[in-house]
Amino acid sequence: MDFTSDNAAGVSQPIFNAMMATNQGASPAYGADPFTAKAVALLSAIFETDVAVFLVATGTAANALALGALCPPWGAVFCHETAHVMEDECGAPEMFTGGAKLIGVKGRAGKIAAKDLAAALKAFPRGLVKQVQPAALSLSQATECGAVYSCAELAELSAIAHAAGLGVHMDGARFANALTTLDCAPAEMSWKAGIDVLSFGATKNGALACEAVLVFDPAKAHTLPFQRKRSGHTVSKGRFLGAQMAAYLEDGHWLVNARTANEHAARLAAGLARAPGARLPWPRQANEVFAFLPGKTDAALRAAGVRYYDWTMRDFGEQRAEDEVFVRLVTSFATSASDVEKLIALAGG
Amino acid sequence: MDFTSDNAAGVSQPIFNAMMATNQGASPAYGADPFTAKAVALLSAIFETDVAVFLVATGTAANALALGALCPPWGAVFCHETAHVMEDECGAPEMFTGGAKLIGVKGRAGKIAAKDLAAALKAFPRGLVKQVQPAALSLSQATECGAVYSCAELAELSAIAHAAGLGVHMDGARFANALTTLDCAPAEMSWKAGIDVLSFGATKNGALACEAVLVFDPAKAHTLPFQRKRSGHTVSKGRFLGAQMAAYLEDGHWLVNARTANEHAARLAAGLARAPGARLPWPRQANEVFAFLPGKTDAALRAAGVRYYDWTMRDFGEQRAEDEVFVRLVTSFATSASDVEKLIALAGG
Amino acid sequence: MDFTSDNAAGVSQPIFNAMMATNQGASPAYGADPFTAKAVALLSAIFETDVAVFLVATGTAANALALGALCPPWGAVFCHETAHVMEDECGAPEMFTGGAKLIGVKGRAGKIAAKDLAAALKAFPRGLVKQVQPAALSLSQATECGAVYSCAELAELSAIAHAAGLGVHMDGARFANALTTLDCAPAEMSWKAGIDVLSFGATKNGALACEAVLVFDPAKAHTLPFQRKRSGHTVSKGRFLGAQMAAYLEDGHWLVNARTANEHAARLAAGLARAPGARLPWPRQANEVFAFLPGKTDAALRAAGVRYYDWTMRDFGEQRAEDEVFVRLVTSFATSASDVEKLIALAGG
Amino acid sequence: MDFTSDNAAGVSQPIFNAMMATNQGASPAYGADPFTAKAVALLSAIFETDVAVFLVATGTAANALALGALCPPWGAVFCHETAHVMEDECGAPEMFTGGAKLIGVKGRAGKIAAKDLAAALKAFPRGLVKQVQPAALSLSQATECGAVYSCAELAELSAIAHAAGLGVHMDGARFANALTTLDCAPAEMSWKAGIDVLSFGATKNGALACEAVLVFDPAKAHTLPFQRKRSGHTVSKGRFLGAQMAAYLEDGHWLVNARTANEHAARLAAGLARAPGARLPWPRQANEVFAFLPGKTDAALRAAGVRYYDWTMRDFGEQRAEDEVFVRLVTSFATSASDVEKLIALAGG
Repeated sequence: MDFTSDNAAGVSQPIFNAMMATNQGASPAYGADPFTAKAVALLSAIFETDVAVFLVATGTAANALALGALCPPWGAVFCHETAHVMEDECGAPEMFTGGAKLIGVKGRAGKIAAKDLAAALKAFPRGLVKQVQPAALSLSQATECGAVYSCAELAELSAIAHAAGLGVHMDGARFANALTTLDCAPAEMSWKAGIDVLSFGATKNGALACEAVLVFDPAKAHTLPFQRKRSGHTVSKGRFLGAQMAAYLEDGHWLVNARTANEHAARLAAGLARAPGARLPWPRQANEVFAFLPGKTDAALRAAGVRYYDWTMRDFGEQRAEDEVFVRLVTSFATSASDVEKLIALAGG
Repeated sequence: MDFTSDNAAGVSQPIFNAMMATNQGASPAYGADPFTAKAVALLSAIFETDVAVFLVATGTAANALALGALCPPWGAVFCHETAHVMEDECGAPEMFTGGAKLIGVKGRAGKIAAKDLAAALKAFPRGLVKQVQPAALSLSQATECGAVYSCAELAELSAIAHAAGLGVHMDGARFANALTTLDCAPAEMSWKAGIDVLSFGATKNGALACEAVLVFDPAKAHTLPFQRKRSGHTVSKGRFLGAQMAAYLEDGHWLVNARTANEHAARLAAGLARAPGARLPWPRQANEVFAFLPGKTDAALRAAGVRYYDWTMRDFGEQRAEDEVFVRLVTSFATSASDVEKLIALAGG
Repeated sequence: MDFTSDNAAGVSQPIFNAMMATNQGASPAYGADPFTAKAVALLSAIFETDVAVFLVATGTAANALALGALCPPWGAVFCHETAHVMEDECGAPEMFTGGAKLIGVKGRAGKIAAKDLAAALKAFPRGLVKQVQPAALSLSQATECGAVYSCAELAELSAIAHAAGLGVHMDGARFANALTTLDCAPAEMSWKAGIDVLSFGATKNGALACEAVLVFDPAKAHTLPFQRKRSGHTVSKGRFLGAQMAAYLEDGHWLVNARTANEHAARLAAGLARAPGARLPWPRQANEVFAFLPGKTDAALRAAGVRYYDWTMRDFGEQRAEDEVFVRLVTSFATSASDVEKLIALAGG
Repeated sequence: MDFTSDNAAGVSQPIFNAMMATNQGASPAYGADPFTAKAVALLSAIFETDVAVFLVATGTAANALALGALCPPWGAVFCHETAHVMEDECGAPEMFTGGAKLIGVKGRAGKIAAKDLAAALKAFPRGLVKQVQPAALSLSQATECGAVYSCAELAELSAIAHAAGLGVHMDGARFANALTTLDCAPAEMSWKAGIDVLSFGATKNGALACEAVLVFDPAKAHTLPFQRKRSGHTVSKGRFLGAQMAAYLEDGHWLVNARTANEHAARLAAGLARAPGARLPWPRQANEVFAFLPGKTDAALRAAGVRYYDWTMRDFGEQRAEDEVFVRLVTSFATSASDVEKLIALAGG
């Protein structure tokens, strides 16, 4: 019973099958293959605009490349203080930007509020030479806390950023899960809401190792071929990235997977909310459930072989009681419904 | 009929099968899985020593990480002037070292001669503050020209480098092909010959996207977990890297693949040597064949659908005649023997 | 009447005279001159230990070089959230470390409290690969708010840092002013309190452009010659740096200058404390006075030609009243006593 | 008798006097002072165009900042293989560009020939992702060998560079000496000949520590304020840089100094040419004299206390005879005419 992360799951079968089907004969290297071309075409169709696409194998690469395209070494990237780019990538954005500064903004459930972004920007006046210059806003959709911005919220934040001359990046490692929650078009949750560059994740939602940097404004894309190459992220047998992404998108496979994951999470959240002594710090929105569990419940779950992470979050305003543990449980396309039920039962929910 | 590169080939079946077998249930992310552990054990066994292993998806990543572990920003990496790290990675070593300098050394068929290394080192006295400081030697085995260093040559070069305080890196993107040529133990062609860090390639020889940075001296390994992470090269579903590498090594699969590739190349080289007007600039040693072809032959091959690259090499002392083209033909485990025969026949060999 | 900054002052006469006396005949370049040797000897004598000395022309260079010597690209530097290295150097520490992360710690009057440092360190467990690794603590003495750590406070913070494996840097742009306040030996306020590398400032206290990176642990100094050179901070006519530093130190000139500056500040602080409606957010300790002034007072001062900066500080707990302005006034060796009296009179103090 | 370098000289008196005159009262920091404004006005007048000016204290800083403004991390800078930026700055251009590659071009007496530049550029096709992208040409005027490009040569090289999309930098550490040789207008030897960014040196020709980055195309200047700040090269008491540069330029002082230095060198070269057994590898053009001296002559000079450097140059085609030494002798505004005569007499010229 694994609820540690959606990247503990394997590869969904249609994606694996597509990789296998791709494994025939020779194919041009470094992304000049027909499978990658197909993925690009699908992405452009699904996003209703011609996008520049850069496939890579990891989410950290996608994020760091995106920020590297938006932010100079003397720039500042504004993000939530718990963002993955801030806390979980060992300084990759700093490496790929050549030493830019990430400015953490506080906010409930991993979300940045418009007024807080505005206040943060005010502290970095453009042209004040002694300070790094505001260059990019990075929004995580869904957030590290599993929360989801509405399209209106995204648009408001992007508008503030654009007005201040920043480019806007979305860390969409869980883009599909958020999209499922909002039930809107991909274009609405991205470029129509002001996103300039999107890290479009597939790995956590069924791919083996495939993420796309999508650049909606072609003017921001021209340095990326070189940045990808010199960071070692231009995969030689690129057809297998193309095949993954194409299979991920075809016939709405990605949406099916995300819906499955989200439904598991919804069930889990509801069950835990009913469990004696358990409580959720904020509403579940995508495929992650955060919860305070009584120590006894936690012990019972672990004794039964349920795996998940204790979670540490700073400054959220919620206080953990003495006997509580704060935990994160993540579901995926591969989560078993019966595991969810078992977990709920163990918690007494 | 594709002879463009060994990375135009797909994945060999045993490796694909292993990936599929791995795709069961949940598995810890980021390399903490049993498949990666198995790969590490196999590498240690095959190299007859406990190696620190860092699996990544691309050869550029492996090389750049290796050099980043050996060379500070104010350091110099000595390599052949046509080395992949010098010419084909868009500055990845510069990025991963934080701005070190690569010093190109001339030499026939991509090989560095001992006296030329010594002379190059002499121009960079240790402690002379105005100059970058000698930090690493990078040797390609096989070279970009398909040549192979003998173990004695490697040992001599490493000894010179070590005496001058440098670490020694081997770019082994085609390690298996070179090993097949020398018919020696992996340990002899690596740490016993003074190699400190090895980029051990699998992708060009049958894997999907898998290379290992092998560190023979553990003292040189401790920064690599962080360097790999912050460069975005720590793959989340790491079990699929582990599975590839393990399958690559098990039952000598890697050696079978390399032998096949080399034999195709040997046949090809022999055939072209017989072809009217064609000539080889240096003896074929691994799985790459370089040749001067009469323009007419080149045209006939291309008309028949044979794909390969025109090659440009500077300063080799060989002169191309007016009506000649200089080409590179690469074979792999997936090359078809009949394609080789057809090509030779087309060339009149 | 200039109270904008101690770097608005010129050069004190003994230092200028020494530069002039140095301007005779030829002298070896790049610091190999007798004047630099004399400065090194004086520093070693004054600090009661053999120090490695790297003279540079700016405080940003000194700080960034010091942090570059202590912190790898994947490291974290802990500092006060308002530290000069954090807020006023346009990312120089990030550039010189190759992309490290600065972690801001809150604290009253620019000082870090021991428990806050310990808590900040706890959030960065050593070896947790997804996070940057704790590498250095940077303390400003005096702080950006003009406060001064006691030697015991410095020692406690250094001990915490050392126990966690960090090196300790002191930004001593106003070292002399702080030393004057504490009235202790330079060694007590530096290496005896656990400081490993010190940015020892002279410019703000009478030099033209001269700061020294002092490395008390020689093992941490060996990369600095190259880091200084490649950052363009090895001045060719180095004798003029040596002459400045030597004259600064000789006959206690630096202490005289600092005492003068501090006394002016003391008078100013006392005067403002008496002025109707004015108040100090924290006690004056060195040569900077921070004050809330009634808008009317501020207007009167400015109308009379007094120059100083409005100051912005985040999160100090002090609240500015509607009609108040928050300002910084800095004194130096060159401040005129009558200007101080005039200012106080204008403020009604 | 010092002929080691023009940076072994001190400061010329008018420049020192101007610094002293500047040392009155308070002045805005970081270059916002009237002295810097005056220097900018003088530079614009002398170069007959409005230039963006960035004063710094070292030539390495000027060069590295200039290249950092012209070349991205994935770019290539073409320069002579013996250029100061290539050989003598410990990788500063690599640091300031974020890891770009310097491509050395061969050429007699430190000069790049048009055909060799064209050939070098041909090896780096724009858009070939595996290679760094051509971004800048850096020309040294005078060269490291003391040679001087004619304005026509500069214009031809710039035109080739511009046609290939490169920006053109001139390392003018000895701009004044070269200008004296050509006896032309500063504009002709710079922007009218296609130079986009100029490192305009003053230190070697009489200043204490002052160089200017001059940007003739304002579009290439907008990142430099931040690049200068974060590299620690924005001097706080900037008025003293302004004063140096203004005094350097006023009343043609810079040209007087350069003429003096060049005349000493001319006399020296003529004298050595007459000396038995001595010979010059190429004609003297500015203030550096390179010579092959008989071992006996070298020994006599050194015994008499003449200081100068043995010089090493690779691949110039000249061969040193067994009993010869190859030396560099540099003159400056401060060289004594009688020292020159004594040296010539000692050599028997």
